[in-house]
Amino acid sequence: MSTMRSHAQLGVIGGGQLARMMALAARPLGVDVEVYDPSADACAGHVAALSCGAFDDVVALASFAADRDVITFDFENVPAASVEALARDRAVHPGAVALATAQDRLHEKRSFNALGISTAAFADIASRAELDAAVAQLGLPAILKTRRLGYDGKGQFRFRRPEDAEAAWSALGDQASLSGLILEAFVPFQRELSVIAVRGRNGSFASWPLVQNWHVDGVLSASLAPAKVSAAVQQQALDYAQRLAASLDYVGVFALELFDSGDRLLANEMAPRVHNSGHWTIEGAETSQFENHVRAVLGLPLGDTRAVGHACMLNFLGDLPDAAAALAVPGVHWHDYGKAPRAGRKTGHVTVRADDIDGLIVALEALGRALHREAQVAPVIEQLRGR
Amino acid sequence: MSTMRSHAQLGVIGGGQLARMMALAARPLGVDVEVYDPSADACAGHVAALSCGAFDDVVALASFAADRDVITFDFENVPAASVEALARDRAVHPGAVALATAQDRLHEKRSFNALGISTAAFADIASRAELDAAVAQLGLPAILKTRRLGYDGKGQFRFRRPEDAEAAWSALGDQASLSGLILEAFVPFQRELSVIAVRGRNGSFASWPLVQNWHVDGVLSASLAPAKVSAAVQQQALDYAQRLAASLDYVGVFALELFDSGDRLLANEMAPRVHNSGHWTIEGAETSQFENHVRAVLGLPLGDTRAVGHACMLNFLGDLPDAAAALAVPGVHWHDYGKAPRAGRKTGHVTVRADDIDGLIVALEALGRALHREAQVAPVIEQLRGR
Repeated sequence: MSTMRSHAQLGVIGGGQLARMMALAARPLGVDVEVYDPSADACAGHVAALSCGAFDDVVALASFAADRDVITFDFENVPAASVEALARDRAVHPGAVALATAQDRLHEKRSFNALGISTAAFADIASRAELDAAVAQLGLPAILKTRRLGYDGKGQFRFRRPEDAEAAWSALGDQASLSGLILEAFVPFQRELSVIAVRGRNGSFASWPLVQNWHVDGVLSASLAPAKVSAAVQQQALDYAQRLAASLDYVGVFALELFDSGDRLLANEMAPRVHNSGHWTIEGAETSQFENHVRAVLGLPLGDTRAVGHACMLNFLGDLPDAAAALAVPGVHWHDYGKAPRAGRKTGHVTVRADDIDGLIVALEALGRALHREAQVAPVIEQLRGR
Repeated sequence: MSTMRSHAQLGVIGGGQLARMMALAARPLGVDVEVYDPSADACAGHVAALSCGAFDDVVALASFAADRDVITFDFENVPAASVEALARDRAVHPGAVALATAQDRLHEKRSFNALGISTAAFADIASRAELDAAVAQLGLPAILKTRRLGYDGKGQFRFRRPEDAEAAWSALGDQASLSGLILEAFVPFQRELSVIAVRGRNGSFASWPLVQNWHVDGVLSASLAPAKVSAAVQQQALDYAQRLAASLDYVGVFALELFDSGDRLLANEMAPRVHNSGHWTIEGAETSQFENHVRAVLGLPLGDTRAVGHACMLNFLGDLPDAAAALAVPGVHWHDYGKAPRAGRKTGHVTVRADDIDGLIVALEALGRALHREAQVAPVIEQLRGR
């Protein structure tokens, strides 16, 4: 693959589907993308040059970064030492502070609260005795999580009764001294929402309309945008995102996951990168999260984040459904990540776009039937019908 | 660049910006694209594997095609012998008949007329005497063109007065015995239009809304879609495109350029490929011409061709304008082809999209100012203001 040195060179640490979609969005902007990943099979390597190396190999990372103008990430759990080594010689966005904040659930939640961003009650757990005390204080149900490295429901234990403590501690107790643990009170939320936002190098800020999300077994299953929310809720989410981005001097796209408990929004966690709940923006917004991330980290003006009609994204794990059946439904946009299917692995998604809600309901019903995935579309259709 | 053999393999003959945009659209469909071009610098080679070889090198073409499921083109002037050699062993879309028809202006216009598709009057010119006779019969102004290989106004001579015959013949006369010549009566057209359409392997057919085009020095400068046309004009263009596609058993996207003379539509020429006047479909239609071409040639269902709002595409030749200035205008989508700038060479385009005409006018005015290209946007704005 040839590259033109007259174009901006963007290096992406992590070569999964997020880097892949970023590379596809970067090309029309005249930006050359190269990705860095431990795996020679990394799916972004189908659309961009791929360098292989471990995320903690500071020498290999420095060599990768040497020819790049800007470094960014499709993966937030890059060791802090690696990020600091990269940042010594060139622009790295988002920066070390943002990554460090997002890598540690305890630090993250404390940062949220310090900024006036509400969260569920939580407690730092270093021992079995602290776990018992925290359960007594926070009440049940609650969720015990590792402070670091969990995602998509991994590294979590859902606590329902006091007698679950033994099982929780045997599942995660050994992590107390390694990554640390956090106990979070369960929020009896009505809805899961997320806000995808972007901040430029010059402090410019934009956010897409709020997204409603549905998870299955801790993994995102469907996203609907724009979510139906009051102007007050939209404004509160925007305030949260703006405050967080400013405090971290954040550059690039990020996601803030929220629980809508009916009377207020509680922040769950941030992802310092483009996010699965923002995939709908490729077809459903004037500018996609991927394009705006590239624009932001390179110091270009941010693009318009308005929604274009109504969109629903459905995730696919493992074997992909029949593409031809899906593509026969008008308004369906197919995204095959080119990954080998393994159970539970995100291998693709579709976004269904329509000009109005009625059109989106019709398309989702047709898609559910075509793919035999009525159960996946059902909660979204129910939400849309309730409007 | 690694590829996954479980995905469909599409080979594209020609590796320019059309192949590049096709490759970017093919990826999310799970389609691997490889391109074939005489130049090692071909810009599609930045986003897809590139094989280098001449268009008449039947051995190199066969080797390129060996691992591909389907072969298509971003360039119509591939020698017929090459196309036939490719088609012996695998699916080639569009096929040899369509390419041969489009390669020869005389054959093309005769085919149009045979299908009841109106054209300007024309005459086959084999000698200076035939030129004089045709001028007397068709009247002036008229345009003398080579039957083959001209594009973007090249290989053409505009004839205004009888005394231009000498200059016309000295410019193009030596082509009479090589590619042949055609004299076309000048159409005092009101508008230049084009219809972009797509036909699937199973005969399914779809077309995007009609496009209005503006040319400068024979090269496309701006496209506006949807064009403001009566239902009767839209229907006539659709009929033309449908008749043409069916007669050629066409598979893939094609463009039919039309003159709107006020009372009827005259066909100018067809392009058996994705077309510059269809670039607006990337952001301005539910499914782009590039995605639908890939869907069609691979036998997948065609995507919805409806416009999403209003769009204007502006072409850039030679040095690209300032991307940052353009990207500061909401609704602007930048397309840098990654080509070395040379005078007159198409190096990129922008598409401006807006939900309504007023929004498009505002964005075009802002873009014209930002890029100091008021003259390029002026005729489009004038057309929009007249609505």
